[in-house]
Amino acid sequence: MALVVQKFGGSSVANPRLIKRVAARVVAQKKRGDDVVVVVSAIGDTTDDLIQLSRQITKNPLEREMDMLISTGEQVTIALLAMAIHQLGVEAISFTGAQVGILTDSSYTKAKILDIHSKRIEEELKKGRIVIVAGFQGMTLNQDITTLGRGGSDLTAVALAKVLRAKICEIYTDVDGVYTADPRIEKRARKLDRVSYDEMLELASLGAQVMQGRSMEVAKKFEVPLHIRSSFSNRPGTMIMKEVKAMEDIVVSGVTVNKAEAKVTLRGVPDRPGVAAKIFKEIAASNVNIDMIIQNVSRTGTTDVSFTVPQGDLRKTLEISRRVARKIGAEQVTYADDIAKVSVVGVGMRSHSGIAAKMFAALAAKRINIEMISTSEIKISCVIQRRFAERALRAVHQAFGLHALKG
Amino acid sequence: MALVVQKFGGSSVANPRLIKRVAARVVAQKKRGDDVVVVVSAIGDTTDDLIQLSRQITKNPLEREMDMLISTGEQVTIALLAMAIHQLGVEAISFTGAQVGILTDSSYTKAKILDIHSKRIEEELKKGRIVIVAGFQGMTLNQDITTLGRGGSDLTAVALAKVLRAKICEIYTDVDGVYTADPRIEKRARKLDRVSYDEMLELASLGAQVMQGRSMEVAKKFEVPLHIRSSFSNRPGTMIMKEVKAMEDIVVSGVTVNKAEAKVTLRGVPDRPGVAAKIFKEIAASNVNIDMIIQNVSRTGTTDVSFTVPQGDLRKTLEISRRVARKIGAEQVTYADDIAKVSVVGVGMRSHSGIAAKMFAALAAKRINIEMISTSEIKISCVIQRRFAERALRAVHQAFGLHALKG
Repeated sequence: MALVVQKFGGSSVANPRLIKRVAARVVAQKKRGDDVVVVVSAIGDTTDDLIQLSRQITKNPLEREMDMLISTGEQVTIALLAMAIHQLGVEAISFTGAQVGILTDSSYTKAKILDIHSKRIEEELKKGRIVIVAGFQGMTLNQDITTLGRGGSDLTAVALAKVLRAKICEIYTDVDGVYTADPRIEKRARKLDRVSYDEMLELASLGAQVMQGRSMEVAKKFEVPLHIRSSFSNRPGTMIMKEVKAMEDIVVSGVTVNKAEAKVTLRGVPDRPGVAAKIFKEIAASNVNIDMIIQNVSRTGTTDVSFTVPQGDLRKTLEISRRVARKIGAEQVTYADDIAKVSVVGVGMRSHSGIAAKMFAALAAKRINIEMISTSEIKISCVIQRRFAERALRAVHQAFGLHALKG
Repeated sequence: MALVVQKFGGSSVANPRLIKRVAARVVAQKKRGDDVVVVVSAIGDTTDDLIQLSRQITKNPLEREMDMLISTGEQVTIALLAMAIHQLGVEAISFTGAQVGILTDSSYTKAKILDIHSKRIEEELKKGRIVIVAGFQGMTLNQDITTLGRGGSDLTAVALAKVLRAKICEIYTDVDGVYTADPRIEKRARKLDRVSYDEMLELASLGAQVMQGRSMEVAKKFEVPLHIRSSFSNRPGTMIMKEVKAMEDIVVSGVTVNKAEAKVTLRGVPDRPGVAAKIFKEIAASNVNIDMIIQNVSRTGTTDVSFTVPQGDLRKTLEISRRVARKIGAEQVTYADDIAKVSVVGVGMRSHSGIAAKMFAALAAKRINIEMISTSEIKISCVIQRRFAERALRAVHQAFGLHALKG
């Protein structure tokens, strides 16, 4: 008998009617002969509501108490889902993260999973029961409740699939898979049947909101096969797996656009060893996530260093940058917050030349100027002006022939 | 340094403003130099809201899952209270029932406390922190979450006060103490400064809603000193303690009225040994709580047996009684559901004669007929017609001189 892990997000369990629908789907899987472990998030906006409640008490809540508070959201869902499954005549039992031994470190609100003691789950599966686990939460060795941060329920599902050696980890969501581009921008975007872990990692970090990068990294590391699919239909979604032979004729899997970043440039930076380290060490210390970093070849003994950061961190980043600029003798700090980043992702580009050229040509044909370029083995990103974002995405999507045939 | 356990009910923490007020009160106690353990209930109507939510899933929820669901209510309160206390610059830490090792049996929705492993609480108190514990909940040896049933938060507070050897267990509520009668019925009712455990037990079981009988029994057994007081004022409330010398000049502590019962009579019951046992064994097996039982002296070889039960159990009780009546050869079963029970309670009556006579005279003066009488060492109860309930309470209250001097 094989084991399936199914994860349902907040929008899939947003009300009692939907919870009953999830129950029916889980029971159907069980009746097909599989063991089933279900991971669920908090109902709809519960987590936000709880955060709002805490704001009425204090603007600076203790993180340990924040986790104590918001972990109740998933606990409500697991109990209701267990009741709904039982109502269908099938045995089910619910567990909090603490109860199934999801051990984490004590970095509250963004804890890391250290280990999972899956004994209790295995015992209950042996009794023929469907096991329901609260996503997003765990406990420290000291039995304090923690939460795993954004996308934490995905992480719970992937980690359980790994330790329980599930044949598949199904991630149910409100879209029916991974697309070659955001269908809200590019109507002719095509659903991908398969995509590799690496591509999904890039797609996630580039702003495709289907799955958090952290869960993808764990899935990749332990080769947990994932199936991203809709909780509102029975159609297959997108399989995420190790690269396979058949993928090689697909050069580019998708195009993404990210409009949530700002660009900072330190001009006239003395071109000496250790300068870059100095800049980015100070910024990292303030917990700002830097994305692209570009440094051009020096010509005059000084160079320009540009990088992008989330817009919300721009003010803080500028303060630090100006301080560092004075310290290292850079000339000035400039910034732009009206940028967008368009990227193409595909494992196929490793063995295909001319991908970058094709992308640049597509942008040029639409008279869109490229301000920064950065490339990795499976990704090319261009920073452009924000007002051209949608036009750029459509142009690149077209250039790589990603449109659906009947689109 | 002495330890104080403070318990705040749902109405005392009904919104963020009130939670902040509780925080201020707890911090004031701490600053007076005491160690403080706080037990809280779920916010206002949270528990009822969660039960309503479960009803939208199923009319017959699994009890284990019901406890999983409703235990989230207190967990929300403890987190918010910890944040509010921290906001006042004082260290506090919250715990679920499971985390502080409140071990119970596995009778879900009405679990019994088996033991409390108070090590974690003691450690945190030693660090100078205020410890906040979720009331109403515990866990089984198998780490399943349980709840303690009605009045469970009081029970948590009393049990913690016992194992931690608290100098006092303060029960904060929305009334400012225990009165000689329900002030909504008798405006001149007087607040009692002190009352004994036994009297409170009788008052609780007679319908004074201040505290559940179960918590009182535990408090009495372990002699935990209780202080019932208002969370909305700083005035002292009512101390509940072992009987003390000074109490002896108070003969009667209070008068209560209970309008939630019905009376059942088996007429013409053969007067043989074992018959009463047969009747009440069958009723007990159906989980109906019988209150008063009256059996008169037999004159003709048969007797009448009367008893009272909660009105909600009347139909079930009549069915059983009719079956038993046939079996034992009783003549007929009659009932009345328009009754009320008026009682006087006081440890003083043990050593004072004439209390019963005085009560009966007070009722007779108002032309109220007495249908049943039952007495214990510290209580006399009379069943009368329900429409006379308030009039009877006022008459008896007056007869024993319980009115407030300035009433």
